Formats: sequence, structure tokens, C-alpha cells
Amino acid sequence: MSELRYNLITRDWVIIATERAKRPKDFLKAGKEKKILPEYRPDCPFCPGNEAKTPGETLRLGSESAWKVRSVYNLFGALSPDTQPGRKISGIYLSMQGSGNHEVIIEHPRHDMMIPLMKDEEVGDIIRAYKNRYLSLASDKGIEAIIIFKNHGSSAGTSLEHPHSQLVATPIVPPQIRSRVSAAMNYFDSTGRCIFCKTLEEELKEKARIVLETDKFVSFMPYASYAPFMTWIFPRRHVASFGEINDAEIKDLAINLKNTLQKLYYGLDNPDFNYAIRSMPVKESGTEYLHWYLSIIPRLTQPAGFELGSGIFINTSLPEESAEFLRQVKPPSGER
Amino acid sequence: MSELRYNLITRDWVIIATERAKRPKDFLKAGKEKKILPEYRPDCPFCPGNEAKTPGETLRLGSESAWKVRSVYNLFGALSPDTQPGRKISGIYLSMQGSGNHEVIIEHPRHDMMIPLMKDEEVGDIIRAYKNRYLSLASDKGIEAIIIFKNHGSSAGTSLEHPHSQLVATPIVPPQIRSRVSAAMNYFDSTGRCIFCKTLEEELKEKARIVLETDKFVSFMPYASYAPFMTWIFPRRHVASFGEINDAEIKDLAINLKNTLQKLYYGLDNPDFNYAIRSMPVKESGTEYLHWYLSIIPRLTQPAGFELGSGIFINTSLPEESAEFLRQVKPPSGER
Repeated sequence: MSELRYNLITRDWVIIATERAKRPKDFLKAGKEKKILPEYRPDCPFCPGNEAKTPGETLRLGSESAWKVRSVYNLFGALSPDTQPGRKISGIYLSMQGSGNHEVIIEHPRHDMMIPLMKDEEVGDIIRAYKNRYLSLASDKGIEAIIIFKNHGSSAGTSLEHPHSQLVATPIVPPQIRSRVSAAMNYFDSTGRCIFCKTLEEELKEKARIVLETDKFVSFMPYASYAPFMTWIFPRRHVASFGEINDAEIKDLAINLKNTLQKLYYGLDNPDFNYAIRSMPVKESGTEYLHWYLSIIPRLTQPAGFELGSGIFINTSLPEESAEFLRQVKPPSGER
Repeated sequence: MSELRYNLITRDWVIIATERAKRPKDFLKAGKEKKILPEYRPDCPFCPGNEAKTPGETLRLGSESAWKVRSVYNLFGALSPDTQPGRKISGIYLSMQGSGNHEVIIEHPRHDMMIPLMKDEEVGDIIRAYKNRYLSLASDKGIEAIIIFKNHGSSAGTSLEHPHSQLVATPIVPPQIRSRVSAAMNYFDSTGRCIFCKTLEEELKEKARIVLETDKFVSFMPYASYAPFMTWIFPRRHVASFGEINDAEIKDLAINLKNTLQKLYYGLDNPDFNYAIRSMPVKESGTEYLHWYLSIIPRLTQPAGFELGSGIFINTSLPEESAEFLRQVKPPSGER
């Protein structure tokens, strides 16, 4: 017998295959080929020395000769800053020009580096770059939302090996974010509480789904997680916008994010994954009911016709069991 | 410059990469291996002679010795009929037991058959089986929605070769369906029109996105299509529930569905795809603003971090161009 669980924050029902659930180890890809990357590739546009191949640099941390993190315009951007936003109606249909921004954040000079293997300070620099670009774009009048995300591995939708994240600034509030805002607003209006703060409180009390607690962040698996090993990282401090993350929080998020990804890296043998920072609409940053967070989705399964036709996901793992598994994963000694 | 388009029915914004859009032919998988299936496999539980391997038959069309379509319980069902539905609250969390039904509809005795290659009457039998099982399960008090869907090919989430569809009956109205109901209700309340009828009217007037018109159905690509070659098949008659499809419509849907899938099969070289029948909540079948339809989603691209983090999809094809391409595809002469 399976169990249906309701996600208070996303308003989704998910089916958790409680009895037939796979064991955490079953998600290790059998016979996966290990790909050893070189430290540097002369033909990689993101490797040092090839800066001219990525015009439109918007940020550089470090020095001119030895940068740590760079952000650049995405040459194949889904949205671009060259137009004026504005809706157009034709018959019954509504459209607008694809105005906005799409940037690539190059996370590290080394071609073969990745967050679980970086130093804490290096991860901190990436988050600092996120914040810098977020604040810069949030001040643009036409921007309603900013999505910062990362695709790691081919099943997560990336074709470029060099470690990078992306940032898309949209001229609309994405419907999915609006739906979360609306759920949070209703919860606040009826209970007087932030649904994210309340969820965190409950999770810390129950403990079963906690992956890692650090000073200012908590990573845990949602009660109604829609995919195996999906993990949320919540800031303990109530704040709607990622743009308001402070220095102490950047330092601590670097530790939490690195260690959480390290558990996935060593526990599931470097799985493909996406993460996204779920920050609230840029113009609604002061509200009492919104609370930004980071969501990690390992790409271990894929939606089929039932998911596409209903929006209900089937999770073939137990969040409580997966969290317990990740809590036990320790990086091999000798790793930094 | 891309274009944002708003889908009135799903309430999604999508980004259509109008300028950098791929040409229809670009979606042909380069070097895809052709897999020739045998007509019969002795180890396939769905092949004739192995009926004992699929206990719990719920329907058989044809004769005892020569069946045409069978439906059986799914041995690994996501939901099962053995319990009483009922919500449970624990702390802030809501859950319920996984009650419902999950059946497999075996579409044809031949292991290597598929809808684009079947006779019209054979496709009609599949749809007749869908209707039969829909009506039978819809009368169950605990069932709120029935999702009939098909996974074709491994990127569409199937591992079984023998042609089959599935049916899941849920004890809840899926949030995604509720969202469509709510959009349709608001549209009806403000305009007095069914949004689906209105959309069909507009599409038939504009013609650019029509794939195929038959007597009682129209297949077309949505204006704000979220994936390349996504195609909707709408019944011309306004009716909320798939369960109310009549004999003449079954006959005509068989022709429309077969021919639409044939265009994908020959035009894109047998792509993996899902389809789902989007019928409205089973207890709301009389309403003026709901209208069932069938949605086909070829699995040519995959969502990445941006889609997961925003709910906004990037479509790298132009619906108008893809529809024009499919309109021109004709099956090779000599094919039945």
C-alpha cells in the first residue's frame, strides 16, 4: 500500500511508494562510467585564457589575472535585455517579447572542479557572485523574478562540463512561484505564521527528515518530496529574498551546501542533479509570509505519462529513509 | 529575441525560442538505432498464451481464444483498491492511504504492433476499452479523477515493449487538474464561454497550428506549447468527461489519433512520446466550462534547472512551423 502526502508549500499531492520503495543504494547507477575530466581544456570557453570567448562579463571575483568566479551573458540566452517588456494581445492570446536577462556564472577556474570538492571559501565566492548579480538585476524596473539554478550532468540538462550556474531574470512572476506565494499567503492569513518557518520548526522537532544542520541553515527532505533524494535547504532566519542573505549566512550556506552535495556525491556516486534558489518575487521582498530557500533535485528518475497527465508525482523512495542514509554518509578521510 | 506566450488553459507562461528555434528536422535523433521487435515473445507477460501471468483481468474485448484488447490490474500499482480512502493529519502534515486503482490496458495481441501501424478498428477497440474501464471505475464512490495515459519508448518512462496504456484512478482531484478547472471556471464566469470551445474556434479560424481535422476531432499544437511537437486533440462537441464519448466519436478519434501519431512516427522517425486523456473530475461531468481532451507530448527535450525552479518551460521550436511540418507528412504508400 502506498501513501499520498500533501505538500503544504507547493500544494502538490505526491504518491510515496512506501512498501515497494527502493532502498537508497538502489539509486546508485549500476556500471556508470567514471569520466575523468582534465584540469584545463584549451577549447573550453570557460577555462582561464579563453575569457575573450565569453563577451559581456558582468562580474569578476578575484584579480584580473587570477579570477575566482566570473559571470557573463549567456550567448544563447532564453531572454535578453534589448527590449521593452509589455504585453501584446492578439485574438484570445497573450504574449510578450522575451525581455529579461540570462547569465552564466562560471564557478571556478578549474575545468574539473565541483562544489563537493571545493574549499568552503570557494563555494562562498559562488554564493557571493549569486548575490551580487541578483541585487544588480533586481534593481531593473522590468524584472519581476530571478531564478538562479545549476544543471549538473547530462540528465540534468547540461552539455558543458566546466562548472557553472545560470541566472534568468524574468519580466513576469512565474506561475509556479505565484502559486507558492498564494499558498503561503493563505497560510499566513489563517494562522499568522510563515509556512516555511513553521515547516522548519516541525522538521527540527521530528528530526526524521533532517540531512544536515549548520549554524544558519538546515537541509532536509520534504515530507511530500516528489523525487528521490530531493532536498531543501532553508535559512533559519525569516527573509523573503535571497538578495538579503548576509555575510555570515553566505559563509554558513557555503558549508551547508557543500556538505549536503558531498553526501549526495559520495553516497550516490556523483548523481546528476539540479538545484534552484527559490527566491520570492523581487518586488515583494518585505512580506511576512515569504521565505527563500534552495531546492536540490537529483535526477534519478523521470516523469512519465501519469506525472504529465496529472501533475501527481510518484516517489519510489521514502524521504525518512533517504535522509537517514545521507546523514550517515561521510566524505572519505583525506578529502578537504 | 524570444517570445513569452501565455497558455490560457494551463495558465503557464512559456518561452518560445522564436529566432533560435530548431527546424523540425533537427528533432530527428541522429543515428538512432532501429529496434526490430518480434511479433511474439514467449517471455512477455502481455503476449497471447501468457494470460495467467497477469492475474486480475478487468476487461477482454474479442473472444476467449482470440482477444483484441485486455485490461488487467497493475501488479506494481501506484494505488490499490484494498483500502478506505480518508485523510490523516499528523502535526502540520496531511496524508492518506494510497487507495484507488491502477490498471494496464494491453492494446494488441502482437508484441511489435503500435497505434500508427494498426487498423482504424483496432485503435477504436483500444478507445472502447478506455471508455469501458473509465465508466466502471468512475462509479466507485472513492474515486475523484481518472487518468488514462500511455508511455511509448524509454525516454517516455516505459520498460515494457508490448504496446500498452495505463489507467490510474485517484482518490483526490490532482492539483494540476484543479488548476485547469479553476482557470476554465473563471473564464466562463467572465465571458460565458467554454475556454476549450473558444480555443478550438480560434485555432480553426487561424489554421496555422492545425495538424489534422477529422469529422469530430481536431488535432493542433497549442499556441503556448511547452514542448516541441506537443499536440492536443480536442473533441468538437462540448463535453466534460471522456466517459461520455459516443460510438461515432470513438470511431473518429481512432482515425484522428492514429493519423496524428502516424505523422509523428514517419515525420520524426518513431519518437518516444507520452499521451494522456485530460478528463475532468469524475463528479463534475455536467459543467458547462469543462471539456475533455487528449494531450500528446513527444519526449524530444528534457526540463532542466530553470524549468524545475520556475515552472516556465523553454520551447526550442515554433508551434506554427512544427504544425506545418506535420501537416505535410504522409505515410508511405502501401501502408495501411
